Amino acid sequence: MKKTARSRTRSAKPAKKSRKAKPRMRPLKAKAPSVKGGRNLHSVQDRLHELKRRLLVISDLGSAGAVLGWDEATYMPKGGAVARGRQSATLSRIRHERSVDLGLGALIDSLVPHAKSLPPDSDDAALIRVAHRDYQKAIKVPAEWVERVSRHGSASYDAWIRARPANDFATMRPFLEKTIELSREYAGFFAPYDRILDPLIDDSDEGMTTASIQKLFKELRRELVPIVRAIADQPLADDGCLRGAFGENAQLSFSLDVASRLGYDLDRGRLDKTHHPFCTKFGGGDVRITTRVREDDLGDALFSTVHEAGHAMYEQGVSRALDGTPLGSGVSAGVHESQSRLWENVVGRGRAFWEHFFPALQRLFPDQFSGVALDTFYRAINKVERSLIRTDADEVTYNLHVMLRFDLELDLLEGRLAVKDIPDAWRARMKSDLGVAPPDDRDGCLQDVHWYGGGLGGGFQGYTLGNILSAQFYAAATKANPAIPSELAAGEFRTLHGWLTDNLYRHGRKFTPNNLIERATGEPMTMRPYLAYLRNKYGELYRLPAAA
Amino acid sequence: MKKTARSRTRSAKPAKKSRKAKPRMRPLKAKAPSVKGGRNLHSVQDRLHELKRRLLVISDLGSAGAVLGWDEATYMPKGGAVARGRQSATLSRIRHERSVDLGLGALIDSLVPHAKSLPPDSDDAALIRVAHRDYQKAIKVPAEWVERVSRHGSASYDAWIRARPANDFATMRPFLEKTIELSREYAGFFAPYDRILDPLIDDSDEGMTTASIQKLFKELRRELVPIVRAIADQPLADDGCLRGAFGENAQLSFSLDVASRLGYDLDRGRLDKTHHPFCTKFGGGDVRITTRVREDDLGDALFSTVHEAGHAMYEQGVSRALDGTPLGSGVSAGVHESQSRLWENVVGRGRAFWEHFFPALQRLFPDQFSGVALDTFYRAINKVERSLIRTDADEVTYNLHVMLRFDLELDLLEGRLAVKDIPDAWRARMKSDLGVAPPDDRDGCLQDVHWYGGGLGGGFQGYTLGNILSAQFYAAATKANPAIPSELAAGEFRTLHGWLTDNLYRHGRKFTPNNLIERATGEPMTMRPYLAYLRNKYGELYRLPAAA
Repeated sequence: MKKTARSRTRSAKPAKKSRKAKPRMRPLKAKAPSVKGGRNLHSVQDRLHELKRRLLVISDLGSAGAVLGWDEATYMPKGGAVARGRQSATLSRIRHERSVDLGLGALIDSLVPHAKSLPPDSDDAALIRVAHRDYQKAIKVPAEWVERVSRHGSASYDAWIRARPANDFATMRPFLEKTIELSREYAGFFAPYDRILDPLIDDSDEGMTTASIQKLFKELRRELVPIVRAIADQPLADDGCLRGAFGENAQLSFSLDVASRLGYDLDRGRLDKTHHPFCTKFGGGDVRITTRVREDDLGDALFSTVHEAGHAMYEQGVSRALDGTPLGSGVSAGVHESQSRLWENVVGRGRAFWEHFFPALQRLFPDQFSGVALDTFYRAINKVERSLIRTDADEVTYNLHVMLRFDLELDLLEGRLAVKDIPDAWRARMKSDLGVAPPDDRDGCLQDVHWYGGGLGGGFQGYTLGNILSAQFYAAATKANPAIPSELAAGEFRTLHGWLTDNLYRHGRKFTPNNLIERATGEPMTMRPYLAYLRNKYGELYRLPAAA
Repeated sequence: MKKTARSRTRSAKPAKKSRKAKPRMRPLKAKAPSVKGGRNLHSVQDRLHELKRRLLVISDLGSAGAVLGWDEATYMPKGGAVARGRQSATLSRIRHERSVDLGLGALIDSLVPHAKSLPPDSDDAALIRVAHRDYQKAIKVPAEWVERVSRHGSASYDAWIRARPANDFATMRPFLEKTIELSREYAGFFAPYDRILDPLIDDSDEGMTTASIQKLFKELRRELVPIVRAIADQPLADDGCLRGAFGENAQLSFSLDVASRLGYDLDRGRLDKTHHPFCTKFGGGDVRITTRVREDDLGDALFSTVHEAGHAMYEQGVSRALDGTPLGSGVSAGVHESQSRLWENVVGRGRAFWEHFFPALQRLFPDQFSGVALDTFYRAINKVERSLIRTDADEVTYNLHVMLRFDLELDLLEGRLAVKDIPDAWRARMKSDLGVAPPDDRDGCLQDVHWYGGGLGGGFQGYTLGNILSAQFYAAATKANPAIPSELAAGEFRTLHGWLTDNLYRHGRKFTPNNLIERATGEPMTMRPYLAYLRNKYGELYRLPAAA
């Protein structure tokens, strides 16, 4: 499972989004500012200082929780599980108490008017804006709802762990029905809204709505389905060279070497093995990635590592001045995913990249690759296939998997689809979009953990937004620095990494996602570069007609 | 450096003992019990439940801090250090706030009378007693003192890191002078006392005093000095077989295999490499150990691992019913150290143990050991030597190093010794007790971190108490189960481990150290078994006259 850096503490089990509880009372709109240790904080500077102090404690508690999550996924002995669950919950609860503290709310409210007098691009103005947004969201969600969703999510996840291998959708039905009720309740805390998914989308992709995503997805689907059909008429690429016997240590050291060459700073990071790859951040000086290794499949560890390194380079690149504040991380699921996809797909599955790295791979695994041509290898790592499992899908078909889930979520939440009808709806849509249908629910509607950990809605669109944005950002970087493609072929990544750092990474959450995209690329989010990228790359690989 | 499991979060830097701050006001002695969420907690059961809930949060925060400390010492990239220090401090501060909370104090006070009506051996009676003791100690120490000692300790430690290699005692003088002032202040919070060291000793070894330790040490020293002199007149044992080229992975897997055979449960533990070996606990299901490895010296990793596994088996053996309460850990520094010493020295450096394990070691390192006799190896691992460094000392001379430090601490705190005179006093005492004197301060009074991390006093006696108790416990176990020595020679440790679990480990902090010793061995702490052990073992090894 690919995860964004924002879902830090996930191991196998998805985090409970950023839905937070509110105290019993709404904070008073304080004219007189908050107090600390009995002293009135009269000056704006004192209040800003106190705000940062409080936010730093909240950040520290989040980072401590992330360390516990990383340890749980990497090295914790199995006997530690029960206490670890409780310890993580204790940290979350204390963090939450601090996040909805009445004094914090009063402090933020007293600073909002001041923010208007600051330059809008200043760090302090952004800090007040983001702290205000986070606080207002947090206090809308009752603590008792958080408790309920947490208990339900654990029970649902535990049931799913057994139900998926047993192909037992019936067991999951009542869980899913309750999950949908909880998601509807959650949306209700943010009423009024246009569409019920809007508040859920806003949690991870601020500025996007059901309507704007539907518009994008409709356009993308219109282009993708014919491409997939045209490719499907051709024989499959031969990816046999990726199957064989690849030693674990050799895979890990090659993968980490590649990540480091791309710009992942090992003085501020490390790579470990986990069941599911992820990226996690404990501060700008410590951003870690994990991968899994299959000794019979070269692609898994390598591309997972590059994917997570993309997330990690984003987090490592956030200005250190924003560290420990709510501005000190990536801005949205979509923008975050754009960086994992840019490095994994646009760069890491590109021909130029392998012009440089393939000889090293051949030296590392001579038995496998000494007789293999670069072109054969390049086709193997870009094989397009109509497949059942989203996480194994190639970059062309991947988006169709995402859209299927997004549309079903909307139908479920808006009452057009009943839980009992999910398996049929899933098969029908797979058949129409991808031309294959799962023989069972295990590899159909039971495959993703997202719906079975207590949350449904708003968790998938970021993957496709990321694909779209990866091409838009890469095009802008290349327009500003036309030498980038030839630099990639020479194993030189500093110009690209530098452009991304300057235009995206360093800003953290300082600008809204839409603002950031427009500042970096000169225009709002657009599908054009992504479609051009797909048509060029796969048109050439599969000799598609120019019209496709 | 060998550390007890109680000093959990230490890496290189010593923890700041268990000196805690007090709130501005003393808690009111509440007749009406504490409240939770607005409800009065009328029944004793409700109040006990609430007490356990609050103590569990404090325990969880401590465990989370311990995970951060373990990660810092094992896998944290260097860029993570600054944020990690702050995150650990944040967790400590919040844990401390909860530990001195006025409501907690009122709750405990309201339960103290109830404890008198419970069977004195019941878990609940012990819980109330220990919670009361911990709370009363915590609130006596002002928060501002904790802040001062923490800042001073960091500055002193940073200076020492440079001063020791530079042999620069002069730089450390003003730091030490301030450290002594802070220790005197700390003792003052617990006035009146008989001797200034008493409150500091009580923190780690409840029930011991300056007077009782001086009495023990005087007796031990009278016996040890002649033994050391008699051994010194003989040629040194040849320990050349321990020097060579021992692969790191082979050493680690052999060491861990030995630890596991002794009874260290790997489903609830693991072994990693650190600069200094230690043991740390995140709950009864997760007790980890670390070691260091020198490829040119077999003894370091092996005996460090067995030593830390001794601490870990103690912690793993605490009854799970006490998990997450203040009763759920080892009872004192001395009793804890007795378990590391029992397994490392009494068992792990014993002839019977190696009758079983030496053939396996020979198979693992045939180049080193195929021609070496068991007796040669046994003499090598028990070589007695007049040496300068405490942590490298053998089990005979080790106690002399400890007594030197204990006596100097007492002289410093009671004003009979000035800081400037430490180097001379150190050399004089080394000369008289061990017959060697350090050529410089680096390997003299600058060698131990203990004095240079902000705390002086009460940190050393536990090592020698542990040596004394290790023999007392082993003698009691063997008296109850005379087959134990022959079982050790057969690689069978369950009887010994079982006796220790039943008589020591499972009780955690339920009984005072002195109570526990008497329950387990039928008598108060006594030197007799330890002196008999040393005379037997080293009398035979070095053919000492029976009188020595």
